[in-house]
Amino acid sequence: MGKTQRQLHLNLFIMNVGHHEAAWRYKGTEPERITDLKHYQRLAQTAEAAKFDSVFLADGLAINKHVKHGAFVGLEPFTLLSALAAVTEHIGLIGTVSTTYNEPFHVARKFASLDHISNGRAGWNIVTSGSIHEAHNFNRDTHPEHAKRYERAKEFLDVTTALWDSWQDDALIIDRDSGVFADPQKVGPISHNGEHFQVRGPLNIPRPPQGYPVLVQAGSSDDGKEFAAQYAEAIFTAQQTLVEAQQFYGDVKGRLLRYGRTPDQLLILPGICPIIGVTESEAKEKEQEINELTVPEYGLNQLSNMLGVDLYTYPLDGPLPELPKLEDINGNKSRFQLVVDLAEREQLTIRQLLHRLAGGRGHRTYAGTATQIADQLEEWFVSDGADGFNVMPPYLPGGLDEFAESVIPELQRRGLFRTEYEGNTLRGNLGLQRPNHPVIPAATAAAISQ
Amino acid sequence: MGKTQRQLHLNLFIMNVGHHEAAWRYKGTEPERITDLKHYQRLAQTAEAAKFDSVFLADGLAINKHVKHGAFVGLEPFTLLSALAAVTEHIGLIGTVSTTYNEPFHVARKFASLDHISNGRAGWNIVTSGSIHEAHNFNRDTHPEHAKRYERAKEFLDVTTALWDSWQDDALIIDRDSGVFADPQKVGPISHNGEHFQVRGPLNIPRPPQGYPVLVQAGSSDDGKEFAAQYAEAIFTAQQTLVEAQQFYGDVKGRLLRYGRTPDQLLILPGICPIIGVTESEAKEKEQEINELTVPEYGLNQLSNMLGVDLYTYPLDGPLPELPKLEDINGNKSRFQLVVDLAEREQLTIRQLLHRLAGGRGHRTYAGTATQIADQLEEWFVSDGADGFNVMPPYLPGGLDEFAESVIPELQRRGLFRTEYEGNTLRGNLGLQRPNHPVIPAATAAAISQ
Repeated sequence: MGKTQRQLHLNLFIMNVGHHEAAWRYKGTEPERITDLKHYQRLAQTAEAAKFDSVFLADGLAINKHVKHGAFVGLEPFTLLSALAAVTEHIGLIGTVSTTYNEPFHVARKFASLDHISNGRAGWNIVTSGSIHEAHNFNRDTHPEHAKRYERAKEFLDVTTALWDSWQDDALIIDRDSGVFADPQKVGPISHNGEHFQVRGPLNIPRPPQGYPVLVQAGSSDDGKEFAAQYAEAIFTAQQTLVEAQQFYGDVKGRLLRYGRTPDQLLILPGICPIIGVTESEAKEKEQEINELTVPEYGLNQLSNMLGVDLYTYPLDGPLPELPKLEDINGNKSRFQLVVDLAEREQLTIRQLLHRLAGGRGHRTYAGTATQIADQLEEWFVSDGADGFNVMPPYLPGGLDEFAESVIPELQRRGLFRTEYEGNTLRGNLGLQRPNHPVIPAATAAAISQ
Repeated sequence: MGKTQRQLHLNLFIMNVGHHEAAWRYKGTEPERITDLKHYQRLAQTAEAAKFDSVFLADGLAINKHVKHGAFVGLEPFTLLSALAAVTEHIGLIGTVSTTYNEPFHVARKFASLDHISNGRAGWNIVTSGSIHEAHNFNRDTHPEHAKRYERAKEFLDVTTALWDSWQDDALIIDRDSGVFADPQKVGPISHNGEHFQVRGPLNIPRPPQGYPVLVQAGSSDDGKEFAAQYAEAIFTAQQTLVEAQQFYGDVKGRLLRYGRTPDQLLILPGICPIIGVTESEAKEKEQEINELTVPEYGLNQLSNMLGVDLYTYPLDGPLPELPKLEDINGNKSRFQLVVDLAEREQLTIRQLLHRLAGGRGHRTYAGTATQIADQLEEWFVSDGADGFNVMPPYLPGGLDEFAESVIPELQRRGLFRTEYEGNTLRGNLGLQRPNHPVIPAATAAAISQ
């Protein structure tokens, strides 16, 4: 595998003290600090020094995990990303926000604000929420059906992009002598009147430096892929094998044409949970050591939710029982399919499956040396399986430090990864265009701004 | 006026480049930086060096001001306060959030997050929104009626406080050996099922360091005062004269008893827009100079909205026309009354009234030397008119620098204001109790957390 001009992109997926469900019990982590800003500040600054494109925070609007054995509660992503904007300069800041339990005016405004305070480093990971527990925190008895959620998500995106465009880029005049602050012809209402939303606009903040925040998508169902092909500029996806990754890559890139887009306008970033050792055997020992710290009760709860079946009554060392059909899953459909395929392909017992999922919750886990991990990333990258990776350290900060000190220099030696940031915005880092501004008819604009 | 042990509290009300509507045209301001984090960082750090209790950001969910002549659009408060949390250590961070166009789960979570990342410095200025323009951005044709908004606000507070209490203070166990992260008996649902909200809970973040953020209220109508007496720990209020301030102070403090509260549990902080000169005549010249930079069209729009009447057709140098009755005002009722009283008391023409309102939008403006301003603050403070002040510099950063360099040292010399922070939390600075945690019945708690 030789050098190449094409550069891969790396996103750091930050998860409290690590992605592995037993990270908080592993040596060197500090679970007492899951709400301590300084912990996250150190992670973001380490990632920036290593030239990661971005940091990313997932989100859910309910506790749908075991609080007894799991360390996955914590800070609201927007609060944390805004704080990190103040102590970093180059790295992108990507936050998850659900379109199912939010209003587009709030969301457009928050991302515009984050983009302004970070000078163009904001990204939005668009999700539709996967759990009935979230519905229960927002006045509802039922969680909307999968396809309905994506319908709402599309209208949500139409509204938010229109709101970001409700100020033209050159709307601010700031002429002290004449007393004209903004040109009312260049700030206009959007007057959206749709099935889910009625929003007048304009937004109460000027257009974001990046035009729009970078739009990211993380669902890999058929609805999810189609949504991504229409709107997204990056996808965080879970793929266990190169063949599956290539199929997904080809499928999604192929869909872009329908929306008048080119393959380079959407970056595909599979997740990777790297367990790094100085030797391969040290890495495997680490993997075993941290897997042995898992509490089966915790993993069973997670897996039962994922598969839509109560697994507590089945023997841990036996196979999976009969499962619901894909069409009956109203949560994360693509993750359901991935787990079913994984268990079948590798003929795993429930216990073995729990261990395979403990690090990345369905994302690929790989234990090896820095060179082996770089080989894996390079192979997927040059074989049309990925444009880069969503890096999910099993434990933090240690797993990030190891990756930054060993894997990144190896990728740089191979000419696959930057040694300096290309630009000052997340779009600049990712090689994505800034969206042009559509012209607002002057008469409409004048109506609201006078 | 002698020294006193009782200390006054000072909040810095940050408004872009200053509170005066012509601040952006005044010498020394940089309106190009209204979305620049570094501008606000400098303000917060100056305020912290001067030992202000807190900084505060107002908010509205629509453009209801002239964009052509006004510089009052900008960052969303939460984004900005979170960023400021990362670059300050002692100063409180108070943000406005409307209970009319938000969901309690989101709001409880965001304030809990801000309180965690700031180590206990968050405050929530609770508003019910005052404008039909906000309704139009949130799927509605009409803005709910004043009393209805306060009903919703009360239920909103019941839900958010229950959510903050859904984790007991000692719920986190973090026992690596046994694998117990949190005690499921100490994390429980709230199962709120009310008229406006159905929220299951628990919150997905541990209880805030302060228990609850400091609860602030800014409406001064009868509904507003009653709401404050029940829930608030500080009030930002607009009062033009000492007599009015004393009436308000006595009225609100008197209402606390009904809710089993004592007068020291609610701090009353009237606004003051100080125009500071080395001599009194220099201060008056400054006031005139900045008033002359106003654009009458802008002020007329503001005043027309406030009074519920179109003032454009009336002569600027004549009196106010006949106005609607107080009961027909569905925006800010107390501000309507204040402006009517001010115009009558001082027999002001429309133009004179516009100038009187240009600095503080109804809050008191006072032009004088640092000593004179300190005299005014002391007089209100020792005469049962105020527990401190909401300081609203007419232009920023200059007006803050002048206040910090001249008025604060004078207040310190008089023994009225701290020279070091008392504590590390906003409650500590304000001398407010941390709310105790009510005990969750264990059976209820176990139901959700298993």
